[in-house]
Amino acid sequence: MTADVVVAGGGVIGTAIAWRAAAAGLDVVLVDPERGDAASLVAAGMLAPVSEALFGEGALLRVNLLALQRFGSFAAELEDVTGHRVGLRREGTLAIAYDPGDYAALMRLTAFRRSAGLEAEELDSRACRKLESFLTPDVHGGVLFPGDWSVDNRRYAAALRKAMTAAKVRIVRDRVTGVLAGDDQVRGVAVADGGEIGAAQVVVAAGCWTSAVAGLPAELRAAVRPVKGQLLRLRHPDGMPPVITHTIRATVRGVDVYLVPRADGEVIVGATQEERGPDLTVTAGAVRDLLRDAMSVLPVTSELILAETCAGLRPGTPDNGPIVGGFGAGNGPGNGQRGLLVATGHYRNGILMSPVTADAIVAFLTGQPPAAEWEPFTPGRFAAGEGSR
Amino acid sequence: MTADVVVAGGGVIGTAIAWRAAAAGLDVVLVDPERGDAASLVAAGMLAPVSEALFGEGALLRVNLLALQRFGSFAAELEDVTGHRVGLRREGTLAIAYDPGDYAALMRLTAFRRSAGLEAEELDSRACRKLESFLTPDVHGGVLFPGDWSVDNRRYAAALRKAMTAAKVRIVRDRVTGVLAGDDQVRGVAVADGGEIGAAQVVVAAGCWTSAVAGLPAELRAAVRPVKGQLLRLRHPDGMPPVITHTIRATVRGVDVYLVPRADGEVIVGATQEERGPDLTVTAGAVRDLLRDAMSVLPVTSELILAETCAGLRPGTPDNGPIVGGFGAGNGPGNGQRGLLVATGHYRNGILMSPVTADAIVAFLTGQPPAAEWEPFTPGRFAAGEGSR
Repeated sequence: MTADVVVAGGGVIGTAIAWRAAAAGLDVVLVDPERGDAASLVAAGMLAPVSEALFGEGALLRVNLLALQRFGSFAAELEDVTGHRVGLRREGTLAIAYDPGDYAALMRLTAFRRSAGLEAEELDSRACRKLESFLTPDVHGGVLFPGDWSVDNRRYAAALRKAMTAAKVRIVRDRVTGVLAGDDQVRGVAVADGGEIGAAQVVVAAGCWTSAVAGLPAELRAAVRPVKGQLLRLRHPDGMPPVITHTIRATVRGVDVYLVPRADGEVIVGATQEERGPDLTVTAGAVRDLLRDAMSVLPVTSELILAETCAGLRPGTPDNGPIVGGFGAGNGPGNGQRGLLVATGHYRNGILMSPVTADAIVAFLTGQPPAAEWEPFTPGRFAAGEGSR
Repeated sequence: MTADVVVAGGGVIGTAIAWRAAAAGLDVVLVDPERGDAASLVAAGMLAPVSEALFGEGALLRVNLLALQRFGSFAAELEDVTGHRVGLRREGTLAIAYDPGDYAALMRLTAFRRSAGLEAEELDSRACRKLESFLTPDVHGGVLFPGDWSVDNRRYAAALRKAMTAAKVRIVRDRVTGVLAGDDQVRGVAVADGGEIGAAQVVVAAGCWTSAVAGLPAELRAAVRPVKGQLLRLRHPDGMPPVITHTIRATVRGVDVYLVPRADGEVIVGATQEERGPDLTVTAGAVRDLLRDAMSVLPVTSELILAETCAGLRPGTPDNGPIVGGFGAGNGPGNGQRGLLVATGHYRNGILMSPVTADAIVAFLTGQPPAAEWEPFTPGRFAAGEGSR
């Protein structure tokens, strides 16, 4: 089998890339052992560059803002092409501080976010409860970040798969074990069943499993690690009206918990961040912590149905930034591995960044310059001796 | 279709009755719409007459003690007949009091249980931790009840089904809608698909669904209600040794929680008691409470895997006692409804009482006297104007 482009990995990143590359006229094969969207199935679907922005992550904030700006048109096109609704919600995120210490921390972050030009509206406890009437009166205060959205991650992933299939991407249910290269140029991939797929351009979008792909630079393989996250899917009992309308991000005595409402009546509660390697078990302690913290800010959570508990793995990197591009000059293909591109390490923002990542990779594949916001996120930044962004 | 006996209901009670009746030479049809063991699938399998004995329930204690005495030989025969192990454990139950108030209540109950002739060994916090080393040192004290056992409810129910099938009981996958009677004598049952099954003796073992069986006295149908219970199944991560060896019944600031170990490494945590009608949803609040209370006494619970959350319905009665027998003199068949027997309302002790209930019903079916302990548990005790036990 041969193609113009092989995409290794069928999560939302790989699927978005495959769809957009095929839509740009390239002949694309996507290789993934399963349906491949395990991480996105477990996600909460927050599109939250504003309420996630942290000190010292200015470059990441810029690419996340680009991602949010792009998300609306990308989702609209996806809905047009597939006829599926992806459940985009634009109500904004309400950040809640449970006690005075939580509030002081939130105020410091809010000042930083404002200094970066982001919109934020401070609210006292009463104003928080005007927006979300089921919040406990014990809440110390909060901040509304109207710029943050959310999407139904499962609907979004399903629509992407449908769009990709409609664009005639061929799907191979196998695992890419390595990238094959000649002297100076990629020539395809090897797959687990022993075969090869020939292509002059290869995109490795393997998420947490990037380290298992032979033929990538060792520093890059070492840079991506799985960060476990556990979350809960709650449902309203018959007849109960929706208990929240905004995404709520609460800090309860220093611990973060979020609650994300869905159009179909689900509420997602997440998420832990655990350095446990590729472990997908749901633990009693994590479920207890999530429920306890959710009930601290929204006591009515207690009456919701616990429909599902699940665990996923996010691809983390040493600087929390994604890894997007090639190995040549200007972050593009070339430099001994012409035709090799990577799109991985999106950590907590794979869904948010999937449209702009697809845009950037399609730019590289077709010889165009990607958006300038990607410049700090080269694969080469982890190579020995090179400076980081 | 006709038979000597129709058993309506395929839970552990109905299955045990069908097996023993067939083993006694009767031609038996069991009618149940599904596999029928929903309640027993959710059970923890405690065989705990001693640590469950409450003030004012002396008659219930006596029948429960008879039940435990019989359980060993019944389980041994079941294992012999089927070749299946049912996971009987005889380590005893360790009752734990978390705080001084919990301890005072446990001491009052222990004095009562001793006065009823039951064995009980008081333990201080250190002695409790000698028996179960993962208990929190915060535990105030406890009592070991060596007379209480447990069984793996799922293995037990599966073995009963196998034994019943081997004994040539015919199984009809339908729902009994009513008992059919002539002037003075039962003549069979009507089923939901519109057909009838003829039999001169009918045993209604429909648990929570007793109220849905037409032809039973109205007072009896009104006497059985569903009491919802939610419980959790935890598993040890690979390589972790078993965290408990005894059944632990803890009272944590007035709230009861139990942890039951299984031979295969599971730990069952239960159980709520909720008056919510026939509701089988798992709620966030119940799961939080169970996990919180379990972790209060056994902090290591936090590291266990939350393998399953489930909800079941127990058939409760106004006096917490079972309803076993017929409508004639001496609790036997007769009195206008000759051939009609009921075996329901076993509440929290369906598994424990299934062997002795089967013994009693087979005695009635074959014209023998049942054990004297059943005398207070006639169906007639709920009839208008009759005194209760």
